Amino acid sequence: MARFETPRITIIGVGEIGRGWAALAVAAGWPVTIYDADAELLSPATEAIGDRVVSLIRLKRAEALVAEAALNEMRVGRSLLQAVAEADWVIEAIPEDLPMKLKVLRLIEQVARRAAIITSTSNGFAPSLLASRLERPERFLVTHPLHPVELIPLVEVVPTPNTDPACVEDIRFWLQMLGRAPIVFKKEVPGNIAERLSAALWRECIQLVVDGVLEIEDVDRAVSIGPALGWAASGPNLHHHLSAGEWGVEVYLGRVLSTYEALWRSLADWTQLNADDQKRLIRQIDRAYTKHAPELREARDQRLVRLLEALREQG
Amino acid sequence: MARFETPRITIIGVGEIGRGWAALAVAAGWPVTIYDADAELLSPATEAIGDRVVSLIRLKRAEALVAEAALNEMRVGRSLLQAVAEADWVIEAIPEDLPMKLKVLRLIEQVARRAAIITSTSNGFAPSLLASRLERPERFLVTHPLHPVELIPLVEVVPTPNTDPACVEDIRFWLQMLGRAPIVFKKEVPGNIAERLSAALWRECIQLVVDGVLEIEDVDRAVSIGPALGWAASGPNLHHHLSAGEWGVEVYLGRVLSTYEALWRSLADWTQLNADDQKRLIRQIDRAYTKHAPELREARDQRLVRLLEALREQG
Repeated sequence: MARFETPRITIIGVGEIGRGWAALAVAAGWPVTIYDADAELLSPATEAIGDRVVSLIRLKRAEALVAEAALNEMRVGRSLLQAVAEADWVIEAIPEDLPMKLKVLRLIEQVARRAAIITSTSNGFAPSLLASRLERPERFLVTHPLHPVELIPLVEVVPTPNTDPACVEDIRFWLQMLGRAPIVFKKEVPGNIAERLSAALWRECIQLVVDGVLEIEDVDRAVSIGPALGWAASGPNLHHHLSAGEWGVEVYLGRVLSTYEALWRSLADWTQLNADDQKRLIRQIDRAYTKHAPELREARDQRLVRLLEALREQG
Repeated sequence: MARFETPRITIIGVGEIGRGWAALAVAAGWPVTIYDADAELLSPATEAIGDRVVSLIRLKRAEALVAEAALNEMRVGRSLLQAVAEADWVIEAIPEDLPMKLKVLRLIEQVARRAAIITSTSNGFAPSLLASRLERPERFLVTHPLHPVELIPLVEVVPTPNTDPACVEDIRFWLQMLGRAPIVFKKEVPGNIAERLSAALWRECIQLVVDGVLEIEDVDRAVSIGPALGWAASGPNLHHHLSAGEWGVEVYLGRVLSTYEALWRSLADWTQLNADDQKRLIRQIDRAYTKHAPELREARDQRLVRLLEALREQG
């Protein structure tokens, strides 16, 4: 297939994630069409996408002329057929409802060009399951972004065993053109990597709160001014490699792995938080943050933008 | 006890961590004394501390005049007695060898002023165990920094049940004066928070490599351009709180906790990596990184400095 440098992109579903994809593609000057089965959502979504594009321009993540032109030309599909018919890349970004997703993916396939690539932003269902009702599963894969889509670079790209490798390469290319950092999975795994790591991390954080070791705010603060900075500077394997020093990598890593055994034995291993602890945890999070949520959100967003700016300047 | 704004600080042990503490205290203009039982280490350590202070000045994390004066006045103890006798705060930063630590802590106590506070940088042994041979355990606690000490703000402050709360407050105050972000623990727990979370995170990352889901480099890259950025912007509890949106915090958190159950069930739960996987993992890390280690280290360090600058500018 010829690789388009500016694919026509259609986004189905205009919630948080769909809006993020639309803002990203508009910021890159691509021809974008949005569609939602709930037509009432389209007008507020158009406005929100506009705001997000303006914010990307302000952050110097989009060229004003290019992005404004694409924003003016952004189309709102009046039907799924009309929205999808001319697209090179269709992104399904509807809520995590399996029967609905299966149905919508099948409908998209029926009205899309044969050469179109269809991706789902789902994180809750296996890509193979999502592809299970498709007639052309070779043109389907998952592209799962993080929140906020237009800021965090990682996109988890998960093909199924039936996906045509050429589709994976096209998607990887397009994602890079959007300034994304695609990571291609060799196998499907629940939660891909980001959500799995979040689950592992959060469980241990919850345990520290439940055990009365730290307050909620201290846990969050410790993570964000401590280990998260190290992980953002290098992943965990590279981190350990760089710590080896005069020990040498083999000896050092063997030693680290054995000192970790005692820690692994001591980590939380429950798979369900009991009802009492759940109530207590939610109450503590609520008490710590609800009152100041708007300020905390603003601070978080600014912090994230600054972190991303810092990494981008580095080139 | 009167709280000194510029305590006389003595650092026992001049490895990586000891040097970091010394650089930090010198950068703040404090009177610093270093000591090591292995006298041959003192001259290279003095040089390395000087380099690190210069680097802090260059990064605008220290005032040149103040730091250079303190560096010139930094003293090298010729004996433990001489090094410790006048100190307000003695930091034990020798290698993780329990009998040696117990012995050195006891020796420090014998020659220190009664009003001195003694802290250990240990992460491998429980604070209460470290205090077990002391005659004045009320003046002892753990202050565990991360790598590199003078850059990552988090310091885990872990008192024992016998620690005088006034000592905790003095140490917290001094750490803040050093530009650190102390987090005070209410209970002792193996690995405090940073190492526990690293263990949880790394186990899951190892599993993804062992299962052939992702290559080593893709795991590291995914972490550092993905979830780690989110965690650095806000801790996990706040993150979930801010995602609640129109659901409301209680309903949303309950829902998130229940969707995490399937993930928690699917996470790696081994407490020891089997010998074959261990060999394979080490070989893969070695193959991925050893050849380019100097460039990777330089890139990691620059990335970390930029991240920290970004957060500091925010105020």
